Amino acid sequence: MTIMMPAADQAVLARREAIIAALRKLVPGEGVISSAAEMLPYESDGLMAYRQPPMVVVLPDTTEQVSKVLKYCHENGIKVVPRGSGTSLSGGALPLADAVLLGLGKFKRVREIDFDNRAVVVEPGVTNLAISQAVAHAGFYYAPDPSSQIACSIGGNVAENSGGVHSLKYGMTTNNLLGCEIVLMSGEVIRVGGKTAETSGYDLMGIITGSEGLLGVITEITVRILQKPETARALMIGFAEVEHAGQCVADVISAGIIPGGMEMMDKPAIHAAEAFVHAGYPLDVEALLIIELDGPGVEVDELIKRVEKIALGCGSTTCQISTSEQERLLFWSGRKAAFPAVGRISPDYLCMDGTIPRAALPLVLRRMKEMSAKYGLGVANVFHAGDGNLHPLILYDANKPGELQLAEDFGADILRLCVEVGGVLTGEHGVGIEKRDLMPEMFSEVDLNQQQRIKCAFDAQGLLNPGKVFPTLHRCAELGRVHVHGGKLAFPDLPRF
Amino acid sequence: MTIMMPAADQAVLARREAIIAALRKLVPGEGVISSAAEMLPYESDGLMAYRQPPMVVVLPDTTEQVSKVLKYCHENGIKVVPRGSGTSLSGGALPLADAVLLGLGKFKRVREIDFDNRAVVVEPGVTNLAISQAVAHAGFYYAPDPSSQIACSIGGNVAENSGGVHSLKYGMTTNNLLGCEIVLMSGEVIRVGGKTAETSGYDLMGIITGSEGLLGVITEITVRILQKPETARALMIGFAEVEHAGQCVADVISAGIIPGGMEMMDKPAIHAAEAFVHAGYPLDVEALLIIELDGPGVEVDELIKRVEKIALGCGSTTCQISTSEQERLLFWSGRKAAFPAVGRISPDYLCMDGTIPRAALPLVLRRMKEMSAKYGLGVANVFHAGDGNLHPLILYDANKPGELQLAEDFGADILRLCVEVGGVLTGEHGVGIEKRDLMPEMFSEVDLNQQQRIKCAFDAQGLLNPGKVFPTLHRCAELGRVHVHGGKLAFPDLPRF
Repeated sequence: MTIMMPAADQAVLARREAIIAALRKLVPGEGVISSAAEMLPYESDGLMAYRQPPMVVVLPDTTEQVSKVLKYCHENGIKVVPRGSGTSLSGGALPLADAVLLGLGKFKRVREIDFDNRAVVVEPGVTNLAISQAVAHAGFYYAPDPSSQIACSIGGNVAENSGGVHSLKYGMTTNNLLGCEIVLMSGEVIRVGGKTAETSGYDLMGIITGSEGLLGVITEITVRILQKPETARALMIGFAEVEHAGQCVADVISAGIIPGGMEMMDKPAIHAAEAFVHAGYPLDVEALLIIELDGPGVEVDELIKRVEKIALGCGSTTCQISTSEQERLLFWSGRKAAFPAVGRISPDYLCMDGTIPRAALPLVLRRMKEMSAKYGLGVANVFHAGDGNLHPLILYDANKPGELQLAEDFGADILRLCVEVGGVLTGEHGVGIEKRDLMPEMFSEVDLNQQQRIKCAFDAQGLLNPGKVFPTLHRCAELGRVHVHGGKLAFPDLPRF
Repeated sequence: MTIMMPAADQAVLARREAIIAALRKLVPGEGVISSAAEMLPYESDGLMAYRQPPMVVVLPDTTEQVSKVLKYCHENGIKVVPRGSGTSLSGGALPLADAVLLGLGKFKRVREIDFDNRAVVVEPGVTNLAISQAVAHAGFYYAPDPSSQIACSIGGNVAENSGGVHSLKYGMTTNNLLGCEIVLMSGEVIRVGGKTAETSGYDLMGIITGSEGLLGVITEITVRILQKPETARALMIGFAEVEHAGQCVADVISAGIIPGGMEMMDKPAIHAAEAFVHAGYPLDVEALLIIELDGPGVEVDELIKRVEKIALGCGSTTCQISTSEQERLLFWSGRKAAFPAVGRISPDYLCMDGTIPRAALPLVLRRMKEMSAKYGLGVANVFHAGDGNLHPLILYDANKPGELQLAEDFGADILRLCVEVGGVLTGEHGVGIEKRDLMPEMFSEVDLNQQQRIKCAFDAQGLLNPGKVFPTLHRCAELGRVHVHGGKLAFPDLPRF
């Protein structure tokens, strides 16, 4: 749906012009975009169902420019929405009609490659894949690999704490981040962490990672790089029941094996992917597991045998093992193209993102099938099974009246189920606007208030990316109230240390 | 030194009595300790140079009791110092004369062992080692292993983000933590995380980990457990120059090998340890590396050969490889007993804790030798070389006037050096009171103010563990001031989303 800008009166338009003029002074050259046509590409992010033109787009080139823009907006009470590559699936970078859209697209430099400390210093607009490419010649790579890695920016990865098919073994963004430079809403610049894994002082890096653009604007990032494993081989295992595949995932993990990746697809996803990329997937199974094992060759050979045996014990009906790098990549090609493949079999789909304790996988899969029947909407399941991160794709047709609403209700039910079994509302796509109103399903008012006090500690006026993450944003003064009985401290004069 | 309680007048004493009486109602039975003799064991933590009797000691048994105690203290403006097992080396649990010491020693239950999700739920007073013992029968363990693991509590581990000799490969506490329950200073209870690695909402777990008791009181912790590696073998490698050992550490890491542990000791530490535990350490070397490799047997054999070759390339003069589990433990016994061993050769020692980028290791070792000559004080070096976490032990005699001061100055110089080469003030011991006044060496005023705004978001009155971590604690109202030009927001009526 398109949300139109309300009819703005002359005074509002004049103010917009004044803001644009002021921003042009701070970011010279072609760094300010204000025409409706040129702003079009910025109207939505990866959550395409929602569109909104911003007030103006600013594309600064240096930390100093970001600092000046934020300081100006802070002093004048102007809202700011930060944006990386705009691949967010939860609407985290959706513009607001009355906010400056601050794009980091010009921050594209790899600043330093330090093999001795296994660290790379980059600007936030560098794509995820570009980091791996910059160090590939020396046999290194950056581990987190979201499906959108060709396009998504490392700054956005930090803001959403992105994962990927290898996060089971190598962690999410937060586990691969060493330091960053952040511009606060006030324009002040802070540095967090460095090239070592430890930090003194409070772990601001943890709080910045996954903060969805509500706390500050990241202008430099230091990540850890890893050496490529000696070998990687994949098994492609089919099951006659989705629950059997779920059991296999649980059994592999509880056997103490940590695969490089462990992904599951159900029948609709398998068929869609196979029709699209011809990866050689078996079409007569209900679920497919792709399990990748990496490490020294001898270890991988040994682990493959163990995984094959575990799968048989769970009732696997087919099993193929990659014998070449080409074949391994072929196994993955279908999984990696699953989203666009599902896009070919359904007019529209809603990509959900929830996380559950691994042991609850068979139960959740069964319940999801029941929900699919209840709503009369198909669902294709593609997920990071190893760490319990589900990506159900709900199939609907936006042209049929009421179907988007039905799909959204179905999605909300899935996320409630995730919370019910002890999981969480999101794995790696963030809360954004998509899951904002579901936050109370997971968090009590006490929890949400505490999270908002953190928000207040960074941005007391609530100017950074408002309307995202929190269902209601309290005034900071209200949250900060000290509750003192009788209006005074009772023991003010005890001896002090 | 002993810091005496200032002469308290009658009114102060009467207030103390009133507080004790109120606490006794909230924590019945033997949960309140107020006599000078019984409070003696609580006067200091592992930073033994500092002692201070608390106002009163409270030992609650349930989350509800902790909540009631904090609520009461919050409403009455009474300071609170939380304490686990009291093994902190930075004075994090040092009492204050006018503060309630809140001990979590009664929180000793292992609440749930969940092998399917590889998670254990424990109370904060459970010792680090007890977690591993509780799951050992099934071949699992909890990875972070501080030297004090027999005594230190998991709650304290979370508060200080403790590491150990295996943190290089398996991470610090923060990398092995899945969830916790925290009582805020207001008495409100929040839950963070769960049994899955991902979280939605802000990463409060990251900010709680390493927060040194300034943000909340942890009452339940869920940790990740790992399966014990199939094999573990250790190499004990001697070098004629400390710098050669430093180079070997850097070379092992940049070769892409991640040992289970990689520890370094210099000559004074080797001699002290050998005299104490007779581990068979070579006495004619300047530095000793203990490198442990773990994993499947075939992989370990292969890695041992590679490490041995790298060491030779760095000029190693001796190399022993463990051939049995008994021998592996013998290699480690000297390293693990190094602190008490150094205690036998010097009347007193100050254990420092800083972290540097690995590549700076040879430089820092050389500079430390120069400082030792300048101050005329010996230094024994024992450290987690693999992740650059130094533990220099500065040898001094507290009975010689001025030597403690000299040792502290030497220590401060070492930490300044760590920051200078791009490292940080602490690896795993925390800031506490020990490194509090060095924080500005590392952080700008903007950084420190932002950290304090986080503190304010949790504890606006500054009642939790005051005097620790921050050199000066600003009033929250002062930090939260919104800077608006002309006293009003400039564009209040732009169209809203």
